[in-house]
Amino acid sequence: MDFSRRIETTLEAAMDRASGRDAPPKLAAAMRHALFPGGARVRPQLSLAVAAACGDDCPELSDAAAAAIEMIHCASLVHDDLPCFDDADVRRGKPSVHIAFSQPIAVLVGDALIVHAFEVLAREGHFQPGRLAALVGALARATGVPNGICAGQGWESEEKIDLSSYHQAKTGALFVAATTMGALAAGAEPAPWTELGARIGEAFQVADDLRDALLTEEELGKPVGQDEMHQRPNAVTALGVEGAVASLHDILGGAVASIPDCPGRAALVKIVQMQAKRLVPGQFAQSAA
Amino acid sequence: MDFSRRIETTLEAAMDRASGRDAPPKLAAAMRHALFPGGARVRPQLSLAVAAACGDDCPELSDAAAAAIEMIHCASLVHDDLPCFDDADVRRGKPSVHIAFSQPIAVLVGDALIVHAFEVLAREGHFQPGRLAALVGALARATGVPNGICAGQGWESEEKIDLSSYHQAKTGALFVAATTMGALAAGAEPAPWTELGARIGEAFQVADDLRDALLTEEELGKPVGQDEMHQRPNAVTALGVEGAVASLHDILGGAVASIPDCPGRAALVKIVQMQAKRLVPGQFAQSAA
Repeated sequence: MDFSRRIETTLEAAMDRASGRDAPPKLAAAMRHALFPGGARVRPQLSLAVAAACGDDCPELSDAAAAAIEMIHCASLVHDDLPCFDDADVRRGKPSVHIAFSQPIAVLVGDALIVHAFEVLAREGHFQPGRLAALVGALARATGVPNGICAGQGWESEEKIDLSSYHQAKTGALFVAATTMGALAAGAEPAPWTELGARIGEAFQVADDLRDALLTEEELGKPVGQDEMHQRPNAVTALGVEGAVASLHDILGGAVASIPDCPGRAALVKIVQMQAKRLVPGQFAQSAA
Repeated sequence: MDFSRRIETTLEAAMDRASGRDAPPKLAAAMRHALFPGGARVRPQLSLAVAAACGDDCPELSDAAAAAIEMIHCASLVHDDLPCFDDADVRRGKPSVHIAFSQPIAVLVGDALIVHAFEVLAREGHFQPGRLAALVGALARATGVPNGICAGQGWESEEKIDLSSYHQAKTGALFVAATTMGALAAGAEPAPWTELGARIGEAFQVADDLRDALLTEEELGKPVGQDEMHQRPNAVTALGVEGAVASLHDILGGAVASIPDCPGRAALVKIVQMQAKRLVPGQFAQSAA
C-alpha cells in the first residue's frame, strides 16, 4: 500500500472509532471536516518515508505515528483559525470548522483531535510496548510547552519574540516529530533524524511565508497577508522575496545532506527532493534541492 | 507522603518542565493559574486511593496517572469557561484564565494541559512499558469522542440530548478513568473498578446540580444558575431538590457497595465515605453514605 493510502486508511479508522451511535453527531462530523480531504499530508508522508528508510518492521505502528502527527497538525489548524487567533473563514478551500459548524464545536474538534492522536498511538503501541513511551513523549514534546506547537502559538501573545525559537516551536517541532517518530516506530534511534526534521520544518516555514506574500487567497485556499495583518514575524519581511528563496534552497540542501546513512537513504532522498520542489514557488523552482 | 502532597508535587514537577527559559512566559504562567491552587482534587485523590487499595507497587506511575487526570480536568474547566461556552469570568474564586490572561492563551492552556497529561504518563510509563498503553488508552477514552469529556461537551451543541449519556460522558468518564487508571498503574485489572468510578461520577454530577441550584456565587466560587441560563439538563430541574438529594444518597450507597474485595478495601470505603460527605449539601448531610 502506498503512503497516501496508508495515511488515509489509518485516519479513517480513527474517525470511525470516534463516530458511531454514541457520538454527538455535529462534533463527529466536524472532526471529519477538519481531517478530510487533507492537504498534502506532508508530515505523515515524511514520517512514513523515514520509517521505510529504517526498515519499517511494524507498519501498523508507523501508520499510527504518521496519523497521530497529522491529527495534531489538523487540530492546530482548527484552533489557529478561531476568531481569537487568525479569524480565518477559509481553510483548504472550504469553510473553516468554526464557520461550517460553530466556535464551541471548533474548540472541541481541536481538543478531541489532540486526544485521538495519543489514542491512535496507544492502540498500536499496545503490541510494541517497548516503543510506546518514546513515541508518546516525542509527540507530546512536539505539541506542548516549552518547545512544541502550543508554545509556538503562545509566543504570538508575547511582546518580545525570537524569530528562530518561534518558528522552531510553531512549525519545526512537528517536523522533528515526523522524522524521529518514523524512526522510533521502526525501532531505530531517533537522534540521527532530528536534523532532517528541523531543516524541513524550517524550509516549510520559509515557503509558507513566501506563499503568504506571493499568492492570492484563491490559489492558497486560505486568507493571505495574515502575517502582515497580525504583525507576525515572517522570513519575507526579514529577508525580502529573493533572500527568502535563497534561504529556502540552502535549507533544503542541508536537509538532504543530513539524512543518515541507512539502507533506504536513496529512496528517502528522492522523496525529500520531491517534497522540496512543491515548497519552492513556481518561478523560483529551477534549482530546488 | 499523603495523597495531596503526592498530587501537588507531581503537578509542580510537570509545570516546571513546561516552564523555564524556553517557554513563552504568559502561557507558562497561565498553565499554572489553571492548575494551582486546585479545587478538592477529587479525581486524583480517588485514583491514588484505588492504586493504594490495589497495592500501589509503582507509586511514581500512580502519581503520574493521578496528575494526568487532574490536568485533563483542569483543561476542560479552562475551555468550558471560554466565552463561546459558559462565558464564566470566575473559577475557584479567582478570574478564569481567559479573563486573567486572554482568550488565545486560554485556548492554548487547555490544549497544552491535555498534551502534558499524556506527557506525564509517558515519562513514568517508560519504566513500566507493560502498563503504559492501557493507561494512555483509558485517559484518551475518558477525554475524547464518542464517550469522553469532549463528547459530553459536544452534546451541548445538539438539539436532542440523552441526559444519562450526556452526564456519563461529561462527568462520569473521567471518574471512571480515575478508578481504572489507579488500578492499572498498580498493575491490577481495571474492569472491577469501572462501577465505582461511574457511580461517583454520577453522584458528583447530581451534587454539582444541587450546588448550582442552592448556593450563591460567593459560596460556589463561580457563577450559579448556569444550567438554567444555558437550558442544560440538570437533576434538580428533573427531580426537585428533595428528589435529587435522595438520588445522591442512593448512588453513593451503590458506589461503596461496588468496591471490589481487595486488601485495601476498608481504607478505600472510608475515603469514599469522606468524599461523599463533602458532596451532599450541609442541610441534607445527616445520612450521607
